Amino acid sequence: MTVRRLRLIGIGPGGPDDLTVTAVRALNSVDVFLVADKEAEAGRAGTGGLVAVRQEICRRHSTGDYRVIAVPDPPRDRTPEVYGAEVRDWHAARAEAYEIALLEQVLDGETVGLLVWGDPSLYDSTIRVVERIRMRGRLDIDYDVIPGVSSVQMLAARHRIVLNVIGGPITVTTGRRLLEEVAGGAENIVVMLDGQLACSKLSGVWDIWWGAQLGTTDEELVAGRLPDVLPQIEKARARAKVARGWVMDTYLLRRASAGPS
Amino acid sequence: MTVRRLRLIGIGPGGPDDLTVTAVRALNSVDVFLVADKEAEAGRAGTGGLVAVRQEICRRHSTGDYRVIAVPDPPRDRTPEVYGAEVRDWHAARAEAYEIALLEQVLDGETVGLLVWGDPSLYDSTIRVVERIRMRGRLDIDYDVIPGVSSVQMLAARHRIVLNVIGGPITVTTGRRLLEEVAGGAENIVVMLDGQLACSKLSGVWDIWWGAQLGTTDEELVAGRLPDVLPQIEKARARAKVARGWVMDTYLLRRASAGPS
Ligand SMILES: C[S@@+](CC[C@H](N)C(=O)[O-])C[C@H]1O[C@@H](n2cnc3c(N)ncnc32)[C@H](O)[C@@H]1O
Ligand SMILES: C[S@@+](CC[C@H](N)C(=O)[O-])C[C@H]1O[C@@H](n2cnc3c(N)ncnc32)[C@H](O)[C@@H]1O
Repeated sequence: MTVRRLRLIGIGPGGPDDLTVTAVRALNSVDVFLVADKEAEAGRAGTGGLVAVRQEICRRHSTGDYRVIAVPDPPRDRTPEVYGAEVRDWHAARAEAYEIALLEQVLDGETVGLLVWGDPSLYDSTIRVVERIRMRGRLDIDYDVIPGVSSVQMLAARHRIVLNVIGGPITVTTGRRLLEEVAGGAENIVVMLDGQLACSKLSGVWDIWWGAQLGTTDEELVAGRLPDVLPQIEKARARAKVARGWVMDTYLLRRASAGPS
Repeated sequence: MTVRRLRLIGIGPGGPDDLTVTAVRALNSVDVFLVADKEAEAGRAGTGGLVAVRQEICRRHSTGDYRVIAVPDPPRDRTPEVYGAEVRDWHAARAEAYEIALLEQVLDGETVGLLVWGDPSLYDSTIRVVERIRMRGRLDIDYDVIPGVSSVQMLAARHRIVLNVIGGPITVTTGRRLLEEVAGGAENIVVMLDGQLACSKLSGVWDIWWGAQLGTTDEELVAGRLPDVLPQIEKARARAKVARGWVMDTYLLRRASAGPS
């Protein structure tokens, strides 16, 4: 069977130097990068686009030659990783598109790189798509994963906070599930994939540490008591959107009674 | 008031190259590293000690000159970060010891570095100790935090898994609280600071992805169904302990019914 060697490389949440030395070395072992074509379009939209960040990382840290293959990206409904079945259909379609590219545009013996935003283990589909290609059985895929700093860790670093109260748990979830987690008793919660600021619907006394475009030059940070700081967060979100054409934000919520921060 | 500039630098969970390019740059801005003296002792115990890892990181990535100050470490009872009051007393004592070192052994204008294992935001006391020094009011502390890859991300990378099921939550907790979290309904749980394999007491059908000494050359990985793989994990823990004199392990537990991995 045709063998393809893949490397999934965590590149951090947006800054060009927020990837590890191991990741830099991995970049330099890559002959061909696969890039989703939709992202390529987003990249063309401006220098702050997601693809522009990836390009800048390759430009700075890759010393050798490499090719870039744009893979047509299947259309999808909504935010990635939020819905079950729809997401799985989309994974299947993406796996098929990648498989074609790997068969037709990559040579035997070449190393293929996939740059993964933040860390590959957190609300990202790349590992799942690669596992699907393996399961399809047409290609023998040999791959490794290089971890990266996630947006959650960048959020904590910028606010200079520890995510847990002493000895306490951390719940990481999506905006869509936030109210459910709170109903279930969670009091210290990291929220990702939330385009709607689901926290604005919370009652009770909560503190928030919020950040957008973390790691980039357009970083926005707000911290304080909910709902006092919500207007500030909304303004900062709007500013971030204007600066880059996209906004990615993450926040930690902690019930004021949960313990010392 | 005397000003001291501090940098808290996440160095990753054990590998000498698993820190970011930004962290390498931060290392190179440091004039003086503060190191807890107890750790210095552990380092003398062998080349695989925690201090040895830190030394190797400085040796590889720091090009300039720097001093190292060993700060006497206050005695403490048990695992860090697990108990509330005891941990806070220990933080206070460490803050005092660091304050003395900063006042007496650091010169005005010097940059002080603190190397933090993994990522500073996850069950680590360094930020809290620095905040205590600030609150004591004798020193004007100006500090920043550089995020690192945590042991949790290294665990996921080595097992090539995503920590969340699609759209689902992740609970991160300590061994001490594991059974409580499960009783509260958690089905997808990352466990840290567990010297006793608390998961061996679980009932129900669970899968585990376990790792020790992640990022080092003595890495151990086991994955499978609980309790089938527990004997294997116990053997791997013992092996890890023999190799380095210490063992640090982390695992992901997922109820088999929680969704596709
Ligand atoms: C599909 S998930 C991918 C997460 C990514 N794997 C990571 O490790 O950060 C996208 C979500 O991550 C968060 N995110 C990613 N990059 C971010 C950034 N630079 N600033 C703030 N949040 C970010 C946002 O919550 C966004 O909705
Ligand atoms: C005091 S906490 C510090 C965690 C650290 N800040 C991080 O980001 O990984 C120590 C716990 O982290 C986990 N840990 C740290 N380094 C590890 C490694 N190299 N392999 C496995 N687990 C590790 C273990 O659960 C250990 O009990």
